[in-house]
Amino acid sequence: METDLFSYPTPFTPPTTEEDELPVLRLIRSRRVGPTTFHRLIGEHGSAAAALAALPEVARAAGVADYTPCPEKQARAEIKAGKAAGAQLLIHGGPGYPAALAEIDDAPPVLWALGQQELLTRPMIALVGARNASSLGLRMAKRLSEGLGEAGICVVSGLARGIDAAAHEAALPTGTIAVQAGGIDVIYPQENTALAQQMAETGLRLTEAPPGTQPQARHFPARNRIISGLSAGVVVVEAALKSGSLITARDALDQGREVMAVPGHPMDGRAGGCNALIRDGATLVRGSEDVLAALNARAAPPEPRPAPPPPPTPAPRAVKSGDLSAKILERLGPSPTAEDQVIRDLDVPAAAFSQALTALEIEGRIERHRGGLISRPL
Amino acid sequence: METDLFSYPTPFTPPTTEEDELPVLRLIRSRRVGPTTFHRLIGEHGSAAAALAALPEVARAAGVADYTPCPEKQARAEIKAGKAAGAQLLIHGGPGYPAALAEIDDAPPVLWALGQQELLTRPMIALVGARNASSLGLRMAKRLSEGLGEAGICVVSGLARGIDAAAHEAALPTGTIAVQAGGIDVIYPQENTALAQQMAETGLRLTEAPPGTQPQARHFPARNRIISGLSAGVVVVEAALKSGSLITARDALDQGREVMAVPGHPMDGRAGGCNALIRDGATLVRGSEDVLAALNARAAPPEPRPAPPPPPTPAPRAVKSGDLSAKILERLGPSPTAEDQVIRDLDVPAAAFSQALTALEIEGRIERHRGGLISRPL
Repeated sequence: METDLFSYPTPFTPPTTEEDELPVLRLIRSRRVGPTTFHRLIGEHGSAAAALAALPEVARAAGVADYTPCPEKQARAEIKAGKAAGAQLLIHGGPGYPAALAEIDDAPPVLWALGQQELLTRPMIALVGARNASSLGLRMAKRLSEGLGEAGICVVSGLARGIDAAAHEAALPTGTIAVQAGGIDVIYPQENTALAQQMAETGLRLTEAPPGTQPQARHFPARNRIISGLSAGVVVVEAALKSGSLITARDALDQGREVMAVPGHPMDGRAGGCNALIRDGATLVRGSEDVLAALNARAAPPEPRPAPPPPPTPAPRAVKSGDLSAKILERLGPSPTAEDQVIRDLDVPAAAFSQALTALEIEGRIERHRGGLISRPL
Repeated sequence: METDLFSYPTPFTPPTTEEDELPVLRLIRSRRVGPTTFHRLIGEHGSAAAALAALPEVARAAGVADYTPCPEKQARAEIKAGKAAGAQLLIHGGPGYPAALAEIDDAPPVLWALGQQELLTRPMIALVGARNASSLGLRMAKRLSEGLGEAGICVVSGLARGIDAAAHEAALPTGTIAVQAGGIDVIYPQENTALAQQMAETGLRLTEAPPGTQPQARHFPARNRIISGLSAGVVVVEAALKSGSLITARDALDQGREVMAVPGHPMDGRAGGCNALIRDGATLVRGSEDVLAALNARAAPPEPRPAPPPPPTPAPRAVKSGDLSAKILERLGPSPTAEDQVIRDLDVPAAAFSQALTALEIEGRIERHRGGLISRPL
């Protein structure tokens, strides 16, 4: 995993003012800088400001001539728009940022939050499932959500129609968080407008996207990692095989979260995903008691990661950057490969590998996937 | 387990003629001799004839004055009745007796078989479930049964209404075995008369009860151990909590068989038993492929038992039989206790313990339960 190789050399001081927020926001809004690259650059340069300053040179070294980081003006405009929408900016490592989410590899560097931020300090469980849920599925979502709410658990979901909406609605009196795929001020789907407004009052809405972002297909899987990352566990209430909810369940597994599923009859296609999860080891859930029992059995929050090994001894730069880039590309194809594996195969110093990888990424010659995987775009 | 302590001192020669069958049948039909006592007596006396001859003295030593073993006439009458019904007697340890069933602790000493006996050499899977099954459950039973049949598996069930009947019917063309609770010539329930007749032609009916026996409540759990004992695994297709199918599943676990269950939605009460089994570790089954996969994963038949330890060295009879009986009774209450535990607690020679236990059993002062458990009747 990445943290083993690129753990922060200096503690990351939480920003508190807009002047502190600006470099963080500019860095993550810069072209080809995703959450993983963001954390890597912070690790390499010690601060967002330093990483931002180094970015044009990193790009130049990677052969991208016309690279410009996100301008300050754009970041200031984003902050203004978010505040106009009534939202607050939460910075990774800063106050108010949810603790469990901060631990995941590709934690969002920034979050826009609208509503009751204190919900982020509560124990959370995600309820997810089909948009075209059956009435049995909707009733199950409601029942689970009420039961968890009564037990003091905050219910996290994605504000989609179907299971998500039923889970949020039932948990409005006790506490619920919606993670949006688009901007904090962009309600999707429109039919959930009233629910979204209630969520902003008694619940909380969260997103990593800038205000005004219209949600696109690629935003949803990224959003799902936040749903599971916030939560101690994910319950899939009703899901067909090959559904988005299964992606959330896989994220949850990658993140060390408890994966749970409500079974259904095998002849009911809408149970296919849940039954497959249970066969693969997910906990079978019949009601909120089963969810609470699974969490108690785990003894509270997700397991702490193993302590990172001591930082690799900086080795003499025996490997030329260009050679290494070529060697990395040689090892990669269109199917995602574990970064760790590539390092081991090449047997090169981690620091050199890290720099070459960042260059390739900025250059757009590799793609980064969740779970420490990288690939070469077609 | 019993086999550890009372393994056969001499190999048990399979009987082949009625004259050989008679002592076996008389021994198991004698009052208060159940399958476990039968195997123990054979172990102690070397043959059914010797055990039968010793039985009055064993009873007398236990203080039962008027004990008479099953008369020869009664056994001859049973053989006559069974043959008149077209059935054949299979003797434990003899030819034709199903191999997997022979391995269980309380294997039936005799079985009456009516139909295609060669089915007993096929790999078998039990399909069991609710009598008042839903139409979804019945369709599932049919589909599983057909799928297993196509794969060459013989489907075992209990000839009850609901899931059992659906499983048998679908497997008639490929091979199916019904284990009856009553006599081979007593069809229960009556509505399954036509099915029972077909089973006797293209399938097989089996029972340990003498011909003419009307099934009573206590026969059904005993019958269930034969269903699971014959089979490499048991699939519970639809079952509420606290149903007879769950007893079969527990038997199957005790016998080292694979336990599998078809899930259902938690709001459907008829899925309660199956979902509970899956939570407890049963394999979730969506179709016959899942059953076949589970069996392949196990690599064929149930695990062989560990080799029995060397027979205990005959210790001097330091313990008086009367004293020991009193000590055994002291340790027992109405809830079943493991026989092994009582031996360990009393720290007495196994041979002496075994004799005292047999005496108490014949005397009716203890009751024997499946799984090596004993209790004191209220």
